[in-house]
Amino acid sequence: MSRYVPSSELIERAARGETAAIGRLISRAEANMPEARDALAAIYQRSGRAHVIGLTGVPGSGKSTLVAALTQRFRAQGQTVGIVAIDPSSPYSGGAILGDRIRMSDLANDPGVYIRSMATRGAMGGMARATLDAVDILDVGGFHTIIIETVGVGQDEVEIAKASHTTIVVSAPGLGDEIQAIKAGMLEIADIHVVSKADRSDANRTLVDIKQMMTLGAASSAKPEWQVPVLGVSSYSGEGFDDLVTAIAGHRAIAFKTESGRKRQLSIANFRLQKTAETLLIERFIKASTSFVPSIADRLLRREGNPYALASELVAKSLQ
Amino acid sequence: MSRYVPSSELIERAARGETAAIGRLISRAEANMPEARDALAAIYQRSGRAHVIGLTGVPGSGKSTLVAALTQRFRAQGQTVGIVAIDPSSPYSGGAILGDRIRMSDLANDPGVYIRSMATRGAMGGMARATLDAVDILDVGGFHTIIIETVGVGQDEVEIAKASHTTIVVSAPGLGDEIQAIKAGMLEIADIHVVSKADRSDANRTLVDIKQMMTLGAASSAKPEWQVPVLGVSSYSGEGFDDLVTAIAGHRAIAFKTESGRKRQLSIANFRLQKTAETLLIERFIKASTSFVPSIADRLLRREGNPYALASELVAKSLQ
Repeated sequence: MSRYVPSSELIERAARGETAAIGRLISRAEANMPEARDALAAIYQRSGRAHVIGLTGVPGSGKSTLVAALTQRFRAQGQTVGIVAIDPSSPYSGGAILGDRIRMSDLANDPGVYIRSMATRGAMGGMARATLDAVDILDVGGFHTIIIETVGVGQDEVEIAKASHTTIVVSAPGLGDEIQAIKAGMLEIADIHVVSKADRSDANRTLVDIKQMMTLGAASSAKPEWQVPVLGVSSYSGEGFDDLVTAIAGHRAIAFKTESGRKRQLSIANFRLQKTAETLLIERFIKASTSFVPSIADRLLRREGNPYALASELVAKSLQ
Repeated sequence: MSRYVPSSELIERAARGETAAIGRLISRAEANMPEARDALAAIYQRSGRAHVIGLTGVPGSGKSTLVAALTQRFRAQGQTVGIVAIDPSSPYSGGAILGDRIRMSDLANDPGVYIRSMATRGAMGGMARATLDAVDILDVGGFHTIIIETVGVGQDEVEIAKASHTTIVVSAPGLGDEIQAIKAGMLEIADIHVVSKADRSDANRTLVDIKQMMTLGAASSAKPEWQVPVLGVSSYSGEGFDDLVTAIAGHRAIAFKTESGRKRQLSIANFRLQKTAETLLIERFIKASTSFVPSIADRLLRREGNPYALASELVAKSLQ
């Protein structure tokens, strides 16, 4: 094991782009180490340059392959790329996700690319909070573009994809319930819709379906300066990636330079503030409630009260 | 739409076993409707008879097929069965899980079986809280055995499987990382280990691996009155189910009649109390913080403070 390096020292190293320091700072953010908070605060103050892209889609939509292909394009333009993958099956690494990670390995030896998987453990707002801290760290580490990749299942994951300058929703042809999935909550969050596997014959059907849904949902998802594109791409043939890179650059300009971009950033700040507050709140509650829990749990077991009444009593006692 | 029925009326109907009433009460618990809390409190007071089984395993381990086969055994003994499935991909219903549900349909027409999927949305302790409320409702509804089925990924899901009288961890042969997964957190929670697909030639290898790991971990997972069995079962051939049903009955006796069973129930009460308290706490915080959020989020965006300091300020103001 390497020696413990103070977080303040890690900041300076991370700012010089040392990936070992970046990795350690992200681990401290992920572990919610209170002694790392001053460092994370300092990092926040220095962050704000990178373009943050949230990329989401249901399992099987080809997200990771798309992230890898997109990263190669950015690299060809001389941009460095940080990738934060939120892996719901971590630490257990279920089949599909593990497969995705392996495809990522093509990029793993490029010093201009940093890939990090975040665990979804220790929820309580922790995942969103830690992810946004990791984005700051990569930002200060000098990465030009940061991609947050999340599986588009679960409210938290979708919310994190939204907590970016530019949100890309990936759909694949022939997934059946895919369209339902998009209807169920991902349609309105997309700044760019991508249909992957566009080399397949049924991809066009999916493109048409998404465009049609967007027409129906136009009133609710109107974005004044931005017409949400629906793009077919094939990571296999390379088809569509020029358009995708152009669309991303176009949306980036809006994110950084317009009033609606500022509003979006304000709603991200809002989300971040609340998630961080929930982490602190639960932390404080757990600390304060420890001494009261055993006797109240015992009363619950004896049915001398019900879960809601006794939990309410516990909260009241803990916050006194 | 049917008329709104007061929760107090639904309790009486649910207690007579009316599945429509049971379903509506579970929906109210899931939606965390404050007006349902008196009813849930009353239900808690009347609950406590059913044997609650938590069943977990990584994706692909054959959990749902096993639950279906086990349920058929219980039915053959004249027991009624309630199943609460925690579906991480709800409301989007990803491929594998949807496939699982379809296999469940064999049981769907049996009035002695009630199957309910719970969404994982709106975390913040909500899933565990709502699941345990659902278990109470099924208990009061007269179901003899209640099975909580969770995907064994994510700390929350594993914790919920543990919040039962008897926890079964399912493994399948040939899953590769399966053994790692069990090592990573599911080994010590099992009261019964099941290796599914025991008709496969590589099942024996998995059985041996699990037994070996248990020997290594013996010191930490010692349970005085109970020797954790490792059983191979085949939902296809029916092999091993007699042993499994016998093991479940054996563990049930411990859960209800021994001091270690009482300790287990106390730790479940502890978990439930904390999860319910977290729900109430976040609810209270969100209500109290609403008016402070916009101006503090604006300061965050302007970098007139960092996420942790401003979140701490928000918590302090909201709890005043």
